[in-house]
Amino acid sequence: MAAPPHPASGPRPARELTCRLDVGGVPVGGGAPVAVQSMLSLPTADTEGCLAAISELAAAGCEIIRVAVPDAASLPSFEAICASSCLPVVADIHFDHRLAIEACRRGAAKLRINPGTIGSMAKVDAVIEECGSRGIPVRIGVNAGSLHADYVDRTDLTLPESLAASAEAFVAHFHERGFDQLVLSAKAHSVRATVAAYRLLAARLPNVPLHLGVTEAGTLMQGTVKSALGIGTLLLEGIGDTFRVSLTAPPQDEVSVAWQVLAAAGLRRRGPELVSCPTCGRCQVDLERIASEVEQRLHAVSEPLTVAVMGCAVNGPGEARGADVGVACGRGKGVVFSGGKILYTVDEAMIADALLDEIERRTPSDGANVSVVS
Amino acid sequence: MAAPPHPASGPRPARELTCRLDVGGVPVGGGAPVAVQSMLSLPTADTEGCLAAISELAAAGCEIIRVAVPDAASLPSFEAICASSCLPVVADIHFDHRLAIEACRRGAAKLRINPGTIGSMAKVDAVIEECGSRGIPVRIGVNAGSLHADYVDRTDLTLPESLAASAEAFVAHFHERGFDQLVLSAKAHSVRATVAAYRLLAARLPNVPLHLGVTEAGTLMQGTVKSALGIGTLLLEGIGDTFRVSLTAPPQDEVSVAWQVLAAAGLRRRGPELVSCPTCGRCQVDLERIASEVEQRLHAVSEPLTVAVMGCAVNGPGEARGADVGVACGRGKGVVFSGGKILYTVDEAMIADALLDEIERRTPSDGANVSVVS
Repeated sequence: MAAPPHPASGPRPARELTCRLDVGGVPVGGGAPVAVQSMLSLPTADTEGCLAAISELAAAGCEIIRVAVPDAASLPSFEAICASSCLPVVADIHFDHRLAIEACRRGAAKLRINPGTIGSMAKVDAVIEECGSRGIPVRIGVNAGSLHADYVDRTDLTLPESLAASAEAFVAHFHERGFDQLVLSAKAHSVRATVAAYRLLAARLPNVPLHLGVTEAGTLMQGTVKSALGIGTLLLEGIGDTFRVSLTAPPQDEVSVAWQVLAAAGLRRRGPELVSCPTCGRCQVDLERIASEVEQRLHAVSEPLTVAVMGCAVNGPGEARGADVGVACGRGKGVVFSGGKILYTVDEAMIADALLDEIERRTPSDGANVSVVS
Repeated sequence: MAAPPHPASGPRPARELTCRLDVGGVPVGGGAPVAVQSMLSLPTADTEGCLAAISELAAAGCEIIRVAVPDAASLPSFEAICASSCLPVVADIHFDHRLAIEACRRGAAKLRINPGTIGSMAKVDAVIEECGSRGIPVRIGVNAGSLHADYVDRTDLTLPESLAASAEAFVAHFHERGFDQLVLSAKAHSVRATVAAYRLLAARLPNVPLHLGVTEAGTLMQGTVKSALGIGTLLLEGIGDTFRVSLTAPPQDEVSVAWQVLAAAGLRRRGPELVSCPTCGRCQVDLERIASEVEQRLHAVSEPLTVAVMGCAVNGPGEARGADVGVACGRGKGVVFSGGKILYTVDEAMIADALLDEIERRTPSDGANVSVVS
């Protein structure tokens, strides 16, 4: 098997300097693997639907799940979800601190609040007391769309500065009350503003784990581009302990894109990576079809292999040789490589079968369904 | 209309320091707008198909198109394409320097060669002479999959160092012959390696315009994640004068993703930006459906407006107020905003219509079909 393709280098990343938290058994911060989060789009009242979605998301690689608790009527079903969930459940609370306190009592592994929407710092203090006594961590999540009133009209500050300053003030408030089980987020829908805000937080509060995200990033494609750029840029810089890709799309897509961002940033891998060329007038097979078929069939493969599907003689042999398993195509045929060596030539129609056969030969059938690098 | 959401700040970007080239009328480098490229996947023999694809890609925002010229039989149809193309055509040449020379004579606006695949530097010199006499710029494109033989076994260099050193050596060769109409690319399928290689090039050859790309990035979603992260990270740093998103998918997708990357990086915008939340248990409308409908209908809008489609009262009013036009939804209804002001409340079924009505009211019907910020 090929070595991880992206060896870390340079100074010690910021994420190794943050405190380590325990979110219902999942470590966050202090150099722990960057954890993948998502959020349910169903109301808690659909308890069975929520639990089924959590199982499906967990199977896709989600590690922490967030659930909105918008009102007191949601509390019993929230409690039932926490009791049966296979993932730690984060309660997302706004406007009413009593919901936050009740969510703690009913099984939340973490709270996410924006103290700016809670009404008063005295009410926030009641939440701090409850979480402190139960050892429940809190994410302070500030957001450009709900910036605290103290910062909305601060024309002397840029948006990133306002987001960071607001988050810092809340952290100071929690710290003064002896509470340090904190995660911070500072999201905007502008990628530049988001990246700048997190850089400020990483510099000013180096011990506080950061939850990354570009908020309201939009539908599948635009949201993927904005999230990959905003979250990925920070991850490449060593910033960020956990994150959520926010898409106006099913949460399964959020988790899938999240793992692709982790792989692209060279941090963690889940399953194979496909190296495939964009095709051009030089290509003499239907490469898009072959690559799509291989990609589909790779979903059943759990090993972090690199698989190259290449259309011609320009970069094909080099990439196929460098991959764990690969093919470099010519006119209606493909030369199959494994472990850097040429094996044989097959007709176009057999290329996907041949690659999957070779992958199977290289993969120990140990029944593991998740493989992660680093 | 809102101001561009991502004002540039910090030191002067690297792309302002590069030489300015003219690629068939499209300026590249020297601070020109970062140009969007794509590449045809059809053989030149399908001349009509190629010309139709070029027109379609141009309408989608492609500014420079690349065409593979794999053999002498392709030259007459390549010439016909150059003669009728609405975009400057770049000839992509490997292995045979005579094809490069002929492509110049037949209308190429630029050449893309990897001198490492041309066979000998004497053959490269013949290409340099032809391009020099005709004033045709050349992209030197080195690629991890076809690294020059001098660097393949250089275990003392990392891959980014090898890519950069190989590119530098080629640039020196061209410069010694008095040729400086160069663009450089150094692509790998690893995002980290690609970013590192381009940073080295920007530092070592600050005057040479850079063509960015993550090569063989894979199919639509993985390729989009890797391209957004690799290309976008460099663009955010001020590096990169032109780029291509390489996807194992139709070139139309490459162009669409390219513009989304430019918008996310805050550099250029084409049409509206949709700010839409990921929905959660708090949302009491079918926001995914509304956002999809609005997104579809925004394709007909050319102005660089920001449109917010938000599901609840947490960030909804803030984002809807901050957008040019927006909606903050509640139970089965939406409050419509325009220019920061609340206009009226409509039923869920009428939200998309209301937003599009307000967008039309704000948009001068000047018939322009491309709007670009910066």
